[in-house]
Amino acid sequence: MAATPQRVLVVGTGLIGTSVALALQRVGTDVSLQDTQVDALAGAQRRTRAPAGWPAQQPDVVVVAVPPAASAGVVADVLGRYPGATVTDVTSVKAGPLRRLAELDADLSRVVGGHPLAGREVSGPAAARDDLFADRPWVLTPTPATDPHRLAAVVALVTACRAVPVTMSAADHDRAVALTSHVPQLLASVLAGRLTAAADDQVAVSGQGLRDATRVAASDPALWSEILSANAAPVAEVLDAVVADLDAVAAALRVLASTDASPAAATAAADAVQAVLRRGNDGHAKVPGKHGDAAVPLAAIPVVVADSPGELGRLFAVVGEAGVNLEDVRIEHALGRATGVVELSVRADAAAALAAVLVARGWSVRG
Amino acid sequence: MAATPQRVLVVGTGLIGTSVALALQRVGTDVSLQDTQVDALAGAQRRTRAPAGWPAQQPDVVVVAVPPAASAGVVADVLGRYPGATVTDVTSVKAGPLRRLAELDADLSRVVGGHPLAGREVSGPAAARDDLFADRPWVLTPTPATDPHRLAAVVALVTACRAVPVTMSAADHDRAVALTSHVPQLLASVLAGRLTAAADDQVAVSGQGLRDATRVAASDPALWSEILSANAAPVAEVLDAVVADLDAVAAALRVLASTDASPAAATAAADAVQAVLRRGNDGHAKVPGKHGDAAVPLAAIPVVVADSPGELGRLFAVVGEAGVNLEDVRIEHALGRATGVVELSVRADAAAALAAVLVARGWSVRG
Repeated sequence: MAATPQRVLVVGTGLIGTSVALALQRVGTDVSLQDTQVDALAGAQRRTRAPAGWPAQQPDVVVVAVPPAASAGVVADVLGRYPGATVTDVTSVKAGPLRRLAELDADLSRVVGGHPLAGREVSGPAAARDDLFADRPWVLTPTPATDPHRLAAVVALVTACRAVPVTMSAADHDRAVALTSHVPQLLASVLAGRLTAAADDQVAVSGQGLRDATRVAASDPALWSEILSANAAPVAEVLDAVVADLDAVAAALRVLASTDASPAAATAAADAVQAVLRRGNDGHAKVPGKHGDAAVPLAAIPVVVADSPGELGRLFAVVGEAGVNLEDVRIEHALGRATGVVELSVRADAAAALAAVLVARGWSVRG
Repeated sequence: MAATPQRVLVVGTGLIGTSVALALQRVGTDVSLQDTQVDALAGAQRRTRAPAGWPAQQPDVVVVAVPPAASAGVVADVLGRYPGATVTDVTSVKAGPLRRLAELDADLSRVVGGHPLAGREVSGPAAARDDLFADRPWVLTPTPATDPHRLAAVVALVTACRAVPVTMSAADHDRAVALTSHVPQLLASVLAGRLTAAADDQVAVSGQGLRDATRVAASDPALWSEILSANAAPVAEVLDAVVADLDAVAAALRVLASTDASPAAATAAADAVQAVLRRGNDGHAKVPGKHGDAAVPLAAIPVVVADSPGELGRLFAVVGEAGVNLEDVRIEHALGRATGVVELSVRADAAAALAAVLVARGWSVRG
């Protein structure tokens, strides 16, 4: 494995760029910073005490962490400015910027596209952390033109940031985020959008499921329309496939709703609906669980709690004393009153013992 | 308001029926039980010590809590058996059973359809609780034929169970659950189903969003295909609307992906995508928050925690001492290592103070 790059230039000192700088400084890398936005640059310097401006000495690796629309242009500029440097970026869509670089006749042998999956909650250098990337996937998208030594240098940089490098083609990456992030965003937005026309009491007939399904519908429309536009073709392709599946279900349901369908047609329609649900089971089992493991069998223990400060502390203290590790926690919601149900998800083999401890300690375990 | 019914017969002694019996016994109602399944009946008797079998004295209200496919038949039978009794049921789809009752020439003046939104985690009389319905919506679907005194009796029963009665037409109910429960189930199943064809490393490029979007895809296919079949027409109608919205987005994205779209067409397409995202914002704001309130502005505080027993207890103890009430808790996941991020959602106006307390107490607050 290649050594961690000794001299790194970070261009673009927002949350991601400044966090890269902090993470690399932690392992002794000589970092310098550049940004056209003087506020961001000053903020990043306060955090890192790193020198600002284009360094005279050529950096080993340049990390371009500027907004998506500007990224390819800055990468091309940096490639020209430092003819020996490896250049990587951090934008969340990969194929488009690569095409743009090819159009700009950039030296693609020194380019390694990157996408760290981290840091979406907040922005700006003040929010940067040296552990932002710890244990998170960081996708790298080398091309056939990429020099393997350049890829190794960026892998070393990513590893120094304590991220987990995942290498795939730019096209595979863009299809992956279309499927795992961009289409889920659109499904949530469209479903939530359908609620706007519904009466309030109809929307009130809902539970945790609707909240989960629409949570990301609260996302910023300007940001997301930019992301979706940048990955338009792969998102449209996944959307088409999802629409075809939904159309098939709707057709089957119409057969089931009709009074004059033959028994054979009704059976086929019911089978089709069940097959979609079963395929959903299979796909759900592929979704990474906590820590990115394959999903482990979990059991949820619903505990009734008063909805007041300190209750959860008392509950989790008991869970801790029982020596059981929580895989997930969900607060179930009640209507208009000061009680709720907290669902504690633990490994299935630990559930019965934990439930017994909770009951013994006076907690009301539902079920 | 009508007095709580004095004599209630519960037919069907699974989780819901037995929980109704327990809740009504708590307020002094004279409950008897009936079930063709002797195991369930014996289990419910152990929980309630209520008499079993068809009571000689006519009940005021009969609660039919049998599986959906059997419900209308049992309601019709009970109406004939007790010509003075009010009869309600608990199935999650309302219009179909009502049509079936009309076909059976049942006395609809004494029928009040019902659907308590509670108790999905577990089943069977052993899992029953007298507080299962506390603060949960319980939809009632009277028809124009329903005698208002019968409706009042069922409202009193629902209130005695500490549920919140919500009255709407059977058709409105079925459209509501199609929109808030059945279509979200299908979107999750279809999205998760699309993951089955994806490479593992592509699925690994995902975060909390994909887990939220696919969580209910783990549901039981047999149960859900029964539910979807029973509400086939309303679900198909909502699906069609969702598909039309998704088709429009896909068309706009294809314009954005094409190299030869006119600037005007590209602008219109970008506007269309953004409009869908904005409508999603509006719909999200209608989703009931904790306690069924209209959504209140929340802020999420991400805290880095070691993933070991007791850590959460210590964290929530500090939150409790700070006097801040948690609205929601989410555990963010890291890849392959023993650290994680817990997102504490609190009212936005309490977030800065809580973050300061956490930092002062040595917790690592991200951002």
